[in-house]
Amino acid sequence: MRIMASHDTPVSPAGILIDLDGTVFRGNELIEGAREAIKTLRRMGKKIVFLSNRGNISRAMCRKKLLGAGIETDVNDIVLSSSVTAAFLKKHYRFSKVWVLGEQGLVDELRLAGVQNASEPKEADWLVISLHETLTYDDLNQAFQAAAGGARIIATNKDRSFPNEDGNAIDVAGMIGAIETSAQAKTELVVGKPSWLMAEAACTAMGLSAHECMIIGDSIESDIAMGKLYGMKSALVLTGSAKQGEQRLYTPDYVLDSIKDVTKLAEEGILI
Amino acid sequence: MRIMASHDTPVSPAGILIDLDGTVFRGNELIEGAREAIKTLRRMGKKIVFLSNRGNISRAMCRKKLLGAGIETDVNDIVLSSSVTAAFLKKHYRFSKVWVLGEQGLVDELRLAGVQNASEPKEADWLVISLHETLTYDDLNQAFQAAAGGARIIATNKDRSFPNEDGNAIDVAGMIGAIETSAQAKTELVVGKPSWLMAEAACTAMGLSAHECMIIGDSIESDIAMGKLYGMKSALVLTGSAKQGEQRLYTPDYVLDSIKDVTKLAEEGILI
Repeated sequence: MRIMASHDTPVSPAGILIDLDGTVFRGNELIEGAREAIKTLRRMGKKIVFLSNRGNISRAMCRKKLLGAGIETDVNDIVLSSSVTAAFLKKHYRFSKVWVLGEQGLVDELRLAGVQNASEPKEADWLVISLHETLTYDDLNQAFQAAAGGARIIATNKDRSFPNEDGNAIDVAGMIGAIETSAQAKTELVVGKPSWLMAEAACTAMGLSAHECMIIGDSIESDIAMGKLYGMKSALVLTGSAKQGEQRLYTPDYVLDSIKDVTKLAEEGILI
Repeated sequence: MRIMASHDTPVSPAGILIDLDGTVFRGNELIEGAREAIKTLRRMGKKIVFLSNRGNISRAMCRKKLLGAGIETDVNDIVLSSSVTAAFLKKHYRFSKVWVLGEQGLVDELRLAGVQNASEPKEADWLVISLHETLTYDDLNQAFQAAAGGARIIATNKDRSFPNEDGNAIDVAGMIGAIETSAQAKTELVVGKPSWLMAEAACTAMGLSAHECMIIGDSIESDIAMGKLYGMKSALVLTGSAKQGEQRLYTPDYVLDSIKDVTKLAEEGILI
């Protein structure tokens, strides 16, 4: 275990935000000790919310994956960029019609929120862009039609690549680049971490303020940034994108080899 | 007929460069009078080269389309961004391996030129990007792998959209935007008009210097620009992208309603 703490005073967050890809899962594989760490945190009385910038899955799909790995949770304790995008559009643009460049999970969340679909691209007030791993030229062209026709653009996230079986694969930034460049348009809002929308959704789900929370994640740019921007404690894990010893734009409060070391943080009286 | 000449002195170009989309064809349809105009020019002893920024077709495919419209030509009198890209890579990078994000016509031209294919994206020295109307996520992802792996990027053209049956469709700029944004790479070279590569290829095909040539086309940014940049006379036709009376970055020597008015230019002694 390697724990690098920026201070030694014990912290007692009531709620823990746990990132999924790179923290709990690597691809479809559960990271060793993750399940036990989550159990320990729950035994300590911590409220837990799982959050992810993935915009291509629904909370129901995510819950199923967690259950499959032996981690029980309620859909209301899952915060995804898909569900937060849907909630944002429903709350602020309930009369808008939406065209989607994305997958079924996003479509499910939009429908669940009651967001209206445009019947054709040119009718769309908003174009929602997310990861689309079965994208075709026609999908791209319809999204182009929407944006060229004046639809405003909202993206679930803007990750450039994500790790898959073969290394890194092209992510939402590719889809955004295709549309912005061809339609000469700009994305107005990126929903994913470290946005205030994701932070708010997570805090609301737990009924806590940000300063009562800690975020555990593998990404400096999204997880640790979110902690710092909204006043949460933050713990970086080294099982995902961040590497030991690299220069960091945001400094985490703790650096752990893996989420399983959370239990050691507790044993040593740092997390109480 | 409307002929707006910027000067009244007769011009006698020995070679005529004729753009295809918007000048000879509108989609798959021959523009009225185009075949007769080309015949007239040939009867006057003019050498003719057809040129197009299309990178997704081969010269053989293009010749077949022209023949189908009753216009005979040799493949060597056709200059496409696909064939010019292939010739450029063969001439300057004969030991390079290439990955293609594009269609069969481009692949055909590369093979014809003897350009080497990379067996996998990461092996590629160059990524060639062109229009790909049957593109899938996997195609996009493989191109991303090539660019992220260090392949230099060459694009056949960078048009943002092209006219099809349903209006405008997303063009090469979309594919370029997807790869540049996700792989944080930049396209090094865009081959299409108004590049010197296209001008040189056309002049070489006719055995003439640029100042002995005239270009007829519908695009200010590519056709008229090419005329001005390389010292060719230029005639703008209004059957494509350019509209009557709009502001123009480059001023054509002549403005014709259609390519068919070339015969009137001849009758009036302007083109001799």
